[in-house]
Amino acid sequence: MEKETGRIEGFSDGVFAIAITLLVLDLHIPEENSITNGNDLLIFMKNQWPTFLAFILSFFSIFIMWVNHHKIFKQIYSRNSAIMFANGLILFLVSAVSYPTALLARYFNGEASSVVVAIYTGTFVLINLAFNLLWFLASRDKKLLRPGITDQAIKKIHNNYLYGLPVYIIALLFSFWIPSVSLIIILGLWIFWALSSGKIEMSTT
Amino acid sequence: MEKETGRIEGFSDGVFAIAITLLVLDLHIPEENSITNGNDLLIFMKNQWPTFLAFILSFFSIFIMWVNHHKIFKQIYSRNSAIMFANGLILFLVSAVSYPTALLARYFNGEASSVVVAIYTGTFVLINLAFNLLWFLASRDKKLLRPGITDQAIKKIHNNYLYGLPVYIIALLFSFWIPSVSLIIILGLWIFWALSSGKIEMSTT
Amino acid sequence: MEKETGRIEGFSDGVFAIAITLLVLDLHIPEENSITNGNDLLIFMKNQWPTFLAFILSFFSIFIMWVNHHKIFKQIYSRNSAIMFANGLILFLVSAVSYPTALLARYFNGEASSVVVAIYTGTFVLINLAFNLLWFLASRDKKLLRPGITDQAIKKIHNNYLYGLPVYIIALLFSFWIPSVSLIIILGLWIFWALSSGKIEMSTT
Amino acid sequence: MEKETGRIEGFSDGVFAIAITLLVLDLHIPEENSITNGNDLLIFMKNQWPTFLAFILSFFSIFIMWVNHHKIFKQIYSRNSAIMFANGLILFLVSAVSYPTALLARYFNGEASSVVVAIYTGTFVLINLAFNLLWFLASRDKKLLRPGITDQAIKKIHNNYLYGLPVYIIALLFSFWIPSVSLIIILGLWIFWALSSGKIEMSTT
Repeated sequence: MEKETGRIEGFSDGVFAIAITLLVLDLHIPEENSITNGNDLLIFMKNQWPTFLAFILSFFSIFIMWVNHHKIFKQIYSRNSAIMFANGLILFLVSAVSYPTALLARYFNGEASSVVVAIYTGTFVLINLAFNLLWFLASRDKKLLRPGITDQAIKKIHNNYLYGLPVYIIALLFSFWIPSVSLIIILGLWIFWALSSGKIEMSTT
Repeated sequence: MEKETGRIEGFSDGVFAIAITLLVLDLHIPEENSITNGNDLLIFMKNQWPTFLAFILSFFSIFIMWVNHHKIFKQIYSRNSAIMFANGLILFLVSAVSYPTALLARYFNGEASSVVVAIYTGTFVLINLAFNLLWFLASRDKKLLRPGITDQAIKKIHNNYLYGLPVYIIALLFSFWIPSVSLIIILGLWIFWALSSGKIEMSTT
Repeated sequence: MEKETGRIEGFSDGVFAIAITLLVLDLHIPEENSITNGNDLLIFMKNQWPTFLAFILSFFSIFIMWVNHHKIFKQIYSRNSAIMFANGLILFLVSAVSYPTALLARYFNGEASSVVVAIYTGTFVLINLAFNLLWFLASRDKKLLRPGITDQAIKKIHNNYLYGLPVYIIALLFSFWIPSVSLIIILGLWIFWALSSGKIEMSTT
Repeated sequence: MEKETGRIEGFSDGVFAIAITLLVLDLHIPEENSITNGNDLLIFMKNQWPTFLAFILSFFSIFIMWVNHHKIFKQIYSRNSAIMFANGLILFLVSAVSYPTALLARYFNGEASSVVVAIYTGTFVLINLAFNLLWFLASRDKKLLRPGITDQAIKKIHNNYLYGLPVYIIALLFSFWIPSVSLIIILGLWIFWALSSGKIEMSTT
């Protein structure tokens, strides 16, 4: 069976690539004349650390989402409307990530900290749900999948996403209590996925 | 016959992907120091609801246009200048969507409401006309199409776009009377297309 | 012989697609609170006509450049460093088009009119030269080209670009005298290319 | 063996293409009403020369990086997690280039000159290290590479990147002493690479 999803993957790659590259537009340089020497500039940049942290965190989060998207679509060979629109939902949320990132960058230091971290982690809860939806819709009809895929491989991908959900929800809950812990949890989850993704890949392909 | 339209589709996908992702740049975060706590931020975001509505409406409208573009070009195998420029017209209008979206976001609440909704729905009337033009130019010469395509399939695609036109024009007319009804009509049309696209796809391929 | 230029074309398509879509960012909506009703908005937009003109002119200019790029690379099968960098020069100039476009949009009405039209048309002179350079570098070694290409086809493409050069230079010279004539010349050249491109295509392929 | 890295290359091309095209957003046109005639505009643009220099320098630097990325991935046939993330690191740094470029453009003239040149050249030291890491990770397992690649070809690519490192570090050190020399060194390295890349290519393919 020929793979039908080439143009969906190409379009999705485009959206991921643009969303990840637009993040840099939130790194603002100091206003003209507000800086008189190199020291001023370094102090300005040091005070901007939440902006750099948000940039790095969001860049690698979208990158890992792209890796996961890549992995799921390696198993999907046909498409129907349901898959089309679950994928559209993922792309919508991914393209929107720069908004909570900009909020986090500007308001992580200060009284609105809990709210911006909750919006930020909440976005990832939604993205996780959208990935779960995509795989649920694709895997309930084996005719859409790569011929010869094993039930074990289907289940492994399913579990991979399902296990992420409670962790994101815990990160969301922490945002109301100790916001910085939320970000550490998300960072930890990404490192875990980065390290474990090699093994998962081997067993499903 | 080999498909000649690969690079046109690749370029078009690029324009669609960028146009859809640039929409997020119209979600503005509050000015520095205008927000002192999380409550202020939530009130700011609540007041910005037309911005979020316009973002969601335009994102999924471009997404559905891309799905339709995808579907039309699955049937087009050769290209000539006329197709090239009808496609260029579609891309021009799609890339311009962020302008009426930004107008809608800023002026939907207020006295300019009718004008911005008319510009917004008018853009979709034009895009619908451009799609009709593309399919008219492609389908009048069957040598340009997928070998073996049936007349019935050609007609089905033709009708699919033609039926959209009066609905968009009705939405445009409503903008001068009750602007919010226009947006509901457009939203309704998209949901209809999303739900019906599965069936159309099956019968034409 | 296998075509080696796939990834160059893909990358170039990306740059063209982004450059053409970023143009919309120069369409500015009115400042908040500067507009109180729909009439104000229409007057604001009417006064902005050079912005819309510049947007349309630049969009279709980049689009035609992409069509031409597409056509040249259909004939190029191998690549060397010289082709790589001539192509890089084209992409550099294409990505820069939004700057003279923004200048034209803001200063076409007023005393700086000649200067902005000269910069705008001068950019197209440079792009034309870069296209001539690319085809010169590719066509002097027939081993780089599509196997079986005729000398007549090579010459036709060569002439196609060479004839554009004096027209662009005339448009550049007019900018110092009657700037609006320059824009009409450029518009006329594009319409000519759009209409003639079908015939050229047929005879070279 | 089939090449598995197609979608990684496509996504990377997207990020390179967007990063290179977004650079133009840092070319600012003069504020409305700050210019009354063509002469004012030319003076404004003349004073902006560091902006144009930074734009050109960064455009061609990213372009050469893309050429190198292209060349490395022609040799990589399989992928693992380590390659995925080394590539992610390169893309992260490439997408960030517009930030040091904007700093260089605004503060090269003035007392913060050393600091902005150090940040700018420092970014290229990091990118060079990331390319070294990618090739180190890919080449230590010959099963990941193009079947039949010679040890000599592997070493040549390795040396190509390794030799760049000390030059970038020297440029970085000069930024604290005579910042303009740093930029000349980087420019010289790019011209050297542009001229030498033809030969390297021939011997490795």
